[in-house]
Amino acid sequence: MIPYQFIQEKRDGRALAPEAMREFFQAYIDGELADYQMSAFLMAVYFQGLDDGELSTLVDLMVHSGAVMDFSAIPGKKIDKHSTGGVGDKVSLVLAPLVASLGVPVPMMSGRGLGHTGGTLDKLESIPGFRTDLSLSEFEELLEENGCALIGQTEEIAPLDRKLYALRDVTGTVESIPLIASSIMSKKLAEGLDGLVIDLKTGSGAFIPELERGLELAETMIGIGDRYGCETVALVTAMDRPLGYAVGNALEVEEAILALQGGGPDDLREVTIALAAEMLILGGVAEGIEEGRGLASAALDDGRALEKMREIIEAQGGNPAVLDDPALLPQAPVRRVVEAGRKGYISEVNAQAIGRAAVALGAGRATLDAVIDPGVGFHITAKPGDEVDEEVALATVYAATSEAAERGAAAVEAAITIESAPGPIPPLIPYRVTRDGVSEYQA
Amino acid sequence: MIPYQFIQEKRDGRALAPEAMREFFQAYIDGELADYQMSAFLMAVYFQGLDDGELSTLVDLMVHSGAVMDFSAIPGKKIDKHSTGGVGDKVSLVLAPLVASLGVPVPMMSGRGLGHTGGTLDKLESIPGFRTDLSLSEFEELLEENGCALIGQTEEIAPLDRKLYALRDVTGTVESIPLIASSIMSKKLAEGLDGLVIDLKTGSGAFIPELERGLELAETMIGIGDRYGCETVALVTAMDRPLGYAVGNALEVEEAILALQGGGPDDLREVTIALAAEMLILGGVAEGIEEGRGLASAALDDGRALEKMREIIEAQGGNPAVLDDPALLPQAPVRRVVEAGRKGYISEVNAQAIGRAAVALGAGRATLDAVIDPGVGFHITAKPGDEVDEEVALATVYAATSEAAERGAAAVEAAITIESAPGPIPPLIPYRVTRDGVSEYQA
Repeated sequence: MIPYQFIQEKRDGRALAPEAMREFFQAYIDGELADYQMSAFLMAVYFQGLDDGELSTLVDLMVHSGAVMDFSAIPGKKIDKHSTGGVGDKVSLVLAPLVASLGVPVPMMSGRGLGHTGGTLDKLESIPGFRTDLSLSEFEELLEENGCALIGQTEEIAPLDRKLYALRDVTGTVESIPLIASSIMSKKLAEGLDGLVIDLKTGSGAFIPELERGLELAETMIGIGDRYGCETVALVTAMDRPLGYAVGNALEVEEAILALQGGGPDDLREVTIALAAEMLILGGVAEGIEEGRGLASAALDDGRALEKMREIIEAQGGNPAVLDDPALLPQAPVRRVVEAGRKGYISEVNAQAIGRAAVALGAGRATLDAVIDPGVGFHITAKPGDEVDEEVALATVYAATSEAAERGAAAVEAAITIESAPGPIPPLIPYRVTRDGVSEYQA
Repeated sequence: MIPYQFIQEKRDGRALAPEAMREFFQAYIDGELADYQMSAFLMAVYFQGLDDGELSTLVDLMVHSGAVMDFSAIPGKKIDKHSTGGVGDKVSLVLAPLVASLGVPVPMMSGRGLGHTGGTLDKLESIPGFRTDLSLSEFEELLEENGCALIGQTEEIAPLDRKLYALRDVTGTVESIPLIASSIMSKKLAEGLDGLVIDLKTGSGAFIPELERGLELAETMIGIGDRYGCETVALVTAMDRPLGYAVGNALEVEEAILALQGGGPDDLREVTIALAAEMLILGGVAEGIEEGRGLASAALDDGRALEKMREIIEAQGGNPAVLDDPALLPQAPVRRVVEAGRKGYISEVNAQAIGRAAVALGAGRATLDAVIDPGVGFHITAKPGDEVDEEVALATVYAATSEAAERGAAAVEAAITIESAPGPIPPLIPYRVTRDGVSEYQA
């Protein structure tokens, strides 16, 4: 394998031999292949893609570049969920305890906020004392004890992916379907899962706004999962608007607690129940969507999910009293209500704009080393289709200072469009994607 | 300018702003932009190309990244020739003194052998004592005195091109028309030329074998020259077979001397006269091709070109006696004749295969630090279309050892195809390309 010739092969659209791929990536892992050769290769992949065989080889190399978990000693099928990232997406905080409370083990590895979207880890860490930096053996222990553990991605899992992702991030090669799919799936496959549900966000606030490309990504990930005996299913969910009302770390934890108590915003509950049903099917606990949804609704309404969350928080060092008194969560000192100011119908709540405004408030990181302010964010109560008049509150801004609150309020106003007549509202869960293809989602 | 966003702009086919390009490349020159970002950008350029404005900006940045020669104090239009590289291409050794002998100043900067093709510098250095490492002020002085000087590319000329070329070489991004064109033209434009003739090689032995892409390259270079007030003309010449008989450094110098004496192989003389005519037209010495060809033929036949070569060799420290006694050039100890072995017609003399065999003999560099053996190489007297019988000599191998000679002979046999009936022979100079477009070459 001569690196520049290997790069040319991909550039010219010829199939790469598995052995040459192994040599190329191993040399990179070993520090013997330069970043400038890898980045040129990744750009060639951006244009030429990867065929099924190349994709398998890459995933294989990524998975086996680090630790591979083996949870076969723990009874039951281990099922996880992955979201492609959204604004106000606190689903994991409700879903993981919910599904675990129904007897399906959920080993969940989450990431931090990225760009305009929040991260489950940052949200969990707003619970006083909650530890996400478990070792892999603690992770396994807690999974066995509680049927669920929530940790961050560790250095030990798929280090090749980590190295490639860092390079892609600074070389304009992030937005490639096979590279995104292999990055996500390699980490999930190293978790030792039996099944995976993907929450594929679509719309302006998603990383891949276009539905077509999103479906291609879903099908690519499902194909990879299949080849690894990890059955994978995707639900396409709306991310043109934020999910739920809360955007911001502690605010989202508070809203997740409401959902675990059987309440919270309807869209959050609906997406959570739909994803839970898929996980219960993959876990062998439900026969079909209807049964799965029924089980999930009941466990939210009768407190089982909430009790599971209590066990998880306790086990991971957090203060479970937050479940009874959310005022124990970090609070922002300044609040400001944003009113509609005119009559009409909400036609858009731009999720990306809201996400960026939340980062500007301090809820996310503008730079890698920025420190998050857990208390700040928004409650965006306005939803597309709502009829409003002048004095209806559209949102509340939670900020560290009055100036930040003013800027946040201006950003929210700019992100929400009010028109004189009601417009169409994209469905919340338009599609379900399985190895058999794409179909409309039927609750 | 944020590097990863700048790279994405090109990747997505959007036009780059000149100011952003300047910042991007200046950061690279200053060592503040990583090679891995530049290589990703270059791969994006490979796929998306550069528009006229982007190309101009890049050429401008390359030219002004180093010294820019100014020969305006020397009377006459300064004209140079650039060959895209071939096997047995010793044209510069004849052409430069020939054109200078007719009153057109020729400031010629040449390169070394690359891949399977030879380099003018390596050939010149087989003349005992000949110095090509002149300083830019010596270069100007000799140009003024003799109307011609032959030097190597110096570090001072277009250092940005040098840095980019080194990176392209190892990242599979060499074969891009705008990158090739800007690389060639930036060096030539920094030479302070008034006109440039390009010898665009086409066929299996050329760097760009496909005629279509070769013409695109020529038109791109002509466009760049025009924008810089350096009128540029290209002749497309055949490189499916070697040019002349000699392949190898001292062997090619010897053949160039024969041409300067009014002899030598017909194809070498024809290509030289055609290129000389273009240079004489650009230099204002000939009105048209016919007049230019007539002047050039006469200067070869009456010894003026040879005398000019004598002045140049003397001025650059070489031993001019080689012009009278080529045995003073380095000689290979072993010679071996290759016979046809069968009756028929030569249908192919594969230039690339011959070039590679010459590198294997030691006439070129297999690695960057390899030392060239100036005496070795081939005389390939067989030309496509020749009728041969068993005992006709096709070639002579000049080698350092008997083993090398055997391997060279086998390679030559493999490179030459003999068929029972004569086939078509591609024309030697099929096209002439000017700013007005492509036309068939009419001698």
